Amino acid sequence: MALRAGGWHVTAEDRDQSRARRAVELGAADALGRDIDTEVAFVATPVSAIAEVALDLLEHGGPDLVVSDVGGVKGPIVTAVAHRRFVGGHPMAGSEQEGPDGADADLFAGATWVLTPTAGTDQGAYALLRSIVTSLGADVVALEPDRHDALVAVVSHVPHLTAATLMALAADASLEEGALLRLAAGGFRDMTRIAAGSPTIWPDVFRDNASAVLPVLDELQRRIGEARAMVAGGEWRRLEELLERARDARVNLPPRVAAPGQLAELRVPVSDRAGVLAEVTTLLGGLGVNVADLEIAHSAEGEQGVLVLAIGAGDADKARAALVEHGYRPSVRRLQ
Amino acid sequence: MALRAGGWHVTAEDRDQSRARRAVELGAADALGRDIDTEVAFVATPVSAIAEVALDLLEHGGPDLVVSDVGGVKGPIVTAVAHRRFVGGHPMAGSEQEGPDGADADLFAGATWVLTPTAGTDQGAYALLRSIVTSLGADVVALEPDRHDALVAVVSHVPHLTAATLMALAADASLEEGALLRLAAGGFRDMTRIAAGSPTIWPDVFRDNASAVLPVLDELQRRIGEARAMVAGGEWRRLEELLERARDARVNLPPRVAAPGQLAELRVPVSDRAGVLAEVTTLLGGLGVNVADLEIAHSAEGEQGVLVLAIGAGDADKARAALVEHGYRPSVRRLQ
Repeated sequence: MALRAGGWHVTAEDRDQSRARRAVELGAADALGRDIDTEVAFVATPVSAIAEVALDLLEHGGPDLVVSDVGGVKGPIVTAVAHRRFVGGHPMAGSEQEGPDGADADLFAGATWVLTPTAGTDQGAYALLRSIVTSLGADVVALEPDRHDALVAVVSHVPHLTAATLMALAADASLEEGALLRLAAGGFRDMTRIAAGSPTIWPDVFRDNASAVLPVLDELQRRIGEARAMVAGGEWRRLEELLERARDARVNLPPRVAAPGQLAELRVPVSDRAGVLAEVTTLLGGLGVNVADLEIAHSAEGEQGVLVLAIGAGDADKARAALVEHGYRPSVRRLQ
Repeated sequence: MALRAGGWHVTAEDRDQSRARRAVELGAADALGRDIDTEVAFVATPVSAIAEVALDLLEHGGPDLVVSDVGGVKGPIVTAVAHRRFVGGHPMAGSEQEGPDGADADLFAGATWVLTPTAGTDQGAYALLRSIVTSLGADVVALEPDRHDALVAVVSHVPHLTAATLMALAADASLEEGALLRLAAGGFRDMTRIAAGSPTIWPDVFRDNASAVLPVLDELQRRIGEARAMVAGGEWRRLEELLERARDARVNLPPRVAAPGQLAELRVPVSDRAGVLAEVTTLLGGLGVNVADLEIAHSAEGEQGVLVLAIGAGDADKARAALVEHGYRPSVRRLQ
């Protein structure tokens, strides 16, 4: 959809013809099948089928055809295709919806899109792909395939497995003590939220990225063991240092906006209820304050929380004054 | 503040006299010091000082004085005080603010408040305390002191340490690869959010609850090791089962409302931006739809998410129609 909106002629193939037809119906493609003079092809199959489809495209396509993919693991695919006009890709965007009916022309606006050129990659192929991806509104990050896999193991695959493990542990414990989940407040909910996602894609991801996931799991095990030793050995100062380091790193996590620029962070203690959230966001919206980022930092226990908003630094005074007037107690700090 | 609003005469003591005076200024207490005929005393010192203060109160108070506390760990305190008119307590509520200036008369409305009577507890003392806590709007959950400690280890203490460990691991990895945190999307942010909290209270909590925390850490280690073995051994079916169990448990986590009653769950795919959140919540607010609970389920990667709302089942059709009219694609299911 985004390509067509940008003036490209798009054709679609799918193992399931009815899905390809649905894509044409929805305006995601102009026609079915492959054009002989296709300039760029994106392979969006499950990870295990990508290399085979990419090689088939390269074999039957024109001499300038550039092929990319959107798989969540890159090393094994890039190695298997090993072609100068194949550039691995991973758009860090998606939703819980599947198939053409889940398509959204704005999905990639502001998203990070990893491309994984190698020493053997044709520079023209990479440049073309980069310009197309950028034209969709995405931010390109170029990484070696194995580096990509190591990084997503840290920020996505191992956290997912950890969330599922914690949730299963608590669920099993709640079988013995029904009150347990009544004590689960916002912090626990935050930590386990991603475990609510569909499990079906994950076995493939873990299979294809096992070599990156295993050392990160080992490192997590080692660090949990270290924290355990601090608790068992009464090393409270070291434990506090660990928590301080984590706090600093989390507080300084870049906001989810393309260009942080001149932003201010507004921290507003609120009761953790929907009405309050709507009140604050509409109050700011009514003042014309653009909210670049928003999170709710729940307290570890109970229903109080802090609404953390990133807004333009120039709006900070106005926003604070309006919030104070409505009985809130915001604090403001400039980001960067 | 809530006690005074309920008609009680309240006096306040603090190690720091200026804080106690501030409490009187703010209307949280009628006067400084202890009344000789005090009926109920709440000890709200750091955990390490609670038992001593409680024993001092019981020694110098009247023959019917009931004493409770608000510490996050219960076993060691209840054992140390061991008095029939002492009932351990733990309100699951709080904010990131400290001292009398952070006080809020509504803090306990709808919160879970654990009380830990034992076989030796005076029934009248427990009944009085229970009725006071209920009058503040809190929901009482009675648990044995050691059970309480075991449960908060599972849903609060170990998750907190895990979040800090994951965040520190990612921060250290990002020193070698600056792009790492640019790949950190909503799922990672959710999982590490509680690590942004103040570290100072935690060493005390881990010291006093070490005996409950250590076995939970061991169990977490064992389960992560088990998941690791599935990845290393290619046991994909078992891994998917683990993820399915976790998904079911997380999806069925009770909503954060006192009486779920006749609720419906609305899942609305949205781009993960503040404007959309405000639009949906104000749209529903304008229709008079009361939102009982709200979470944003981020996708594992990227900025798309699903807004999960719990609303009255009677409002579900109206809410769905309005959202569809505004271009959203909500799904609805009845809870329970």
